[in-house]
Amino acid sequence: VDRLECRFCNKDYPYDPFSPFCPDCREPLLVPSPVPPRAFHPAESLALTRFREFLPLAAIDPALSLGEGSTPLLPLDRLADRLGLPALFAKNETLNPTQSFKDRGTAVAIQNARRLGFRRIGTVSTGNMAASTAAYGARAGLETVVLLKEGTPEENILMAGIHRPRLLVVEGDYGRLFYESLALGRRHRILFMNSIDPFRIEGYKLTGFEIFLQLGRRVPDLLLAPLSSGGHLIGLLKSFLELKGLGFADRLPVVVGVQAEGCAPLARAFAAGAPRIKIFENPETIAHAISNPNPPAGTLVLKMMKDAGGLIAAVSDAEMLEAQGFLAQEGLFCQPDSATTLAALIKLSRERSFARDATAVLVVTGSGLKNLKALDSLRLPRARLTLSGLAGALAAGGTDA
Amino acid sequence: VDRLECRFCNKDYPYDPFSPFCPDCREPLLVPSPVPPRAFHPAESLALTRFREFLPLAAIDPALSLGEGSTPLLPLDRLADRLGLPALFAKNETLNPTQSFKDRGTAVAIQNARRLGFRRIGTVSTGNMAASTAAYGARAGLETVVLLKEGTPEENILMAGIHRPRLLVVEGDYGRLFYESLALGRRHRILFMNSIDPFRIEGYKLTGFEIFLQLGRRVPDLLLAPLSSGGHLIGLLKSFLELKGLGFADRLPVVVGVQAEGCAPLARAFAAGAPRIKIFENPETIAHAISNPNPPAGTLVLKMMKDAGGLIAAVSDAEMLEAQGFLAQEGLFCQPDSATTLAALIKLSRERSFARDATAVLVVTGSGLKNLKALDSLRLPRARLTLSGLAGALAAGGTDA
Repeated sequence: VDRLECRFCNKDYPYDPFSPFCPDCREPLLVPSPVPPRAFHPAESLALTRFREFLPLAAIDPALSLGEGSTPLLPLDRLADRLGLPALFAKNETLNPTQSFKDRGTAVAIQNARRLGFRRIGTVSTGNMAASTAAYGARAGLETVVLLKEGTPEENILMAGIHRPRLLVVEGDYGRLFYESLALGRRHRILFMNSIDPFRIEGYKLTGFEIFLQLGRRVPDLLLAPLSSGGHLIGLLKSFLELKGLGFADRLPVVVGVQAEGCAPLARAFAAGAPRIKIFENPETIAHAISNPNPPAGTLVLKMMKDAGGLIAAVSDAEMLEAQGFLAQEGLFCQPDSATTLAALIKLSRERSFARDATAVLVVTGSGLKNLKALDSLRLPRARLTLSGLAGALAAGGTDA
Repeated sequence: VDRLECRFCNKDYPYDPFSPFCPDCREPLLVPSPVPPRAFHPAESLALTRFREFLPLAAIDPALSLGEGSTPLLPLDRLADRLGLPALFAKNETLNPTQSFKDRGTAVAIQNARRLGFRRIGTVSTGNMAASTAAYGARAGLETVVLLKEGTPEENILMAGIHRPRLLVVEGDYGRLFYESLALGRRHRILFMNSIDPFRIEGYKLTGFEIFLQLGRRVPDLLLAPLSSGGHLIGLLKSFLELKGLGFADRLPVVVGVQAEGCAPLARAFAAGAPRIKIFENPETIAHAISNPNPPAGTLVLKMMKDAGGLIAAVSDAEMLEAQGFLAQEGLFCQPDSATTLAALIKLSRERSFARDATAVLVVTGSGLKNLKALDSLRLPRARLTLSGLAGALAAGGTDA
């Protein structure tokens, strides 16, 4: 792929790895949809090779993979019954190599870096994307630059730092760094694979393809995913648009992007019917992984969601923590950020009714282990006993709170 | 399966879920090996159904599964070259539902609990096994009792507690609890699926079968796994013994169990040629997940390892931390406990030479996210910069320490 397309100007442009934006309207450019015929290769063990015909890569080097993708689609029947929800599934993206969905994007972006001959890569992130980029950069033997903001918790630095990237703590406006990093990348030949890198977005498509195959070549009625910078949601949308465009499916799911109420620039703009977001002032939420007050693909997300008949919702911290608890009672421990999807479905189910045979998929994006601090408010009841007191406690059964 | 066998007395006995020990010699009983013909079902998506013919279950309820197993076998070519090791692979068990290998055992044990009609299950653990049992117990809708010791870190309690088991903190001798819990289980009808539960051990076999298939139906020359209570290692050994017994393979790998020097009762007994362990006094290591000073399957492990031509090694905390760093430079972030395998292989490679075409597999058992505290000593270098200083830093390249 040497050309990318603009969904606003309906034109294509040469691919510039240091400026994947439309020269005319400045919106993010995307990889064009593949043309038929395209086929899946379900017997391949690597997700990248299973779906290679849908990726903008002439060749795939398996040595750069960490075994990302191929995650379970977990039925949540009891939860659906209890809450009166449609047939419910969790696409468990916490079972990726660095415990988040980011690995799918990084896996494709790193193939692109190798294809283009880069020796250095980088990212601007302090969370899931930093850890993912550092891991794949190490795997590929590339120097990896991670730009952090002042005050990033030591825990988050460790998750990326263990892979020994260059850690640079940058003072000043962290939002500006996103664009600044690309300009510096051009000057010093570093591929900054940030949140809306067009090749990263291609990697997120594979989640949609896997869901389609796991449902027996069916499209779900609802697909819910957390929404922050927009790259992940664009990738998910793109997968279903391509399945339809290539004739595999005859409809799209209703895609629901979910934000935290404490940082919901896209939900606000969507509710107002606005074509562009306003920067969200004073963001405050426990869902750090999805709290981007100025998402760079905001305008594109709003357009694609409107075109595809999608929805953008927002839920409170309390709602996502409650939903995190519901998922844990099904055996799934995710970040509060990921539990926004269930919280939004619960809200939605109060506002509208679903067909009896409707199917909903929650994309569960990151492991709860990454943000144990979010559970500080959780007072887990426990009883203190002696060995001789234990028999009585077990005889009693029930709770000990 | 209604009978279990004793490898010491060479007899079988009725299965008693509350006392899976030989009535004659008190050693742990195991599920007998399957008889031919047996076949794999590689097209099945669940590991449990893919290998169902090798499991002691007449039926498998997929609703109890969390999608465990089917983990990647990651080639580590660069590392092998750099350290002069045989062809090296990591079986990445951190990609299980609760980020450790325990899920494979719990997945089979919970099928057994359902088969036997239990409404309550339990475990004695404060680490990986507590989290795994709590998750699967929640998934199955069973009341789950987790027995903790006084002073268990709040972090560890959270990883299990999020699934809302009954948390009981028991004062007194924690080692005695292992046996005590089984007796209490009989009295109150709770299936305690502790570390060497015979059905749990059957689940660990699937790791061996997957490695065999992933290597193209070949047995590795060396298989290295961390060693604590012994259940995991017995399961791994059992898989290769069965592959050989059923005619799939004509040899066994050299299985290497690795302990922490700070808690190495099995390595000590093995080195001394003793048939039984002595309780390891004053254990002290960062590898909490493998620091069992009095492993209940100790005698059985020593016998099976001797019979199979295996080895038991021990490595220091410094060696496992160094190995953890080596694995992270390949993109893999594991517990120090899991990195013992690489540390042991490095030591072994200094003592003996391997055939040119030898193959070694490290079983990487748990995620590094579970023990970030172990990295407290890691001083990750980072540079502090202003946005305007960033360009200069990127031009320079290299390290900033």
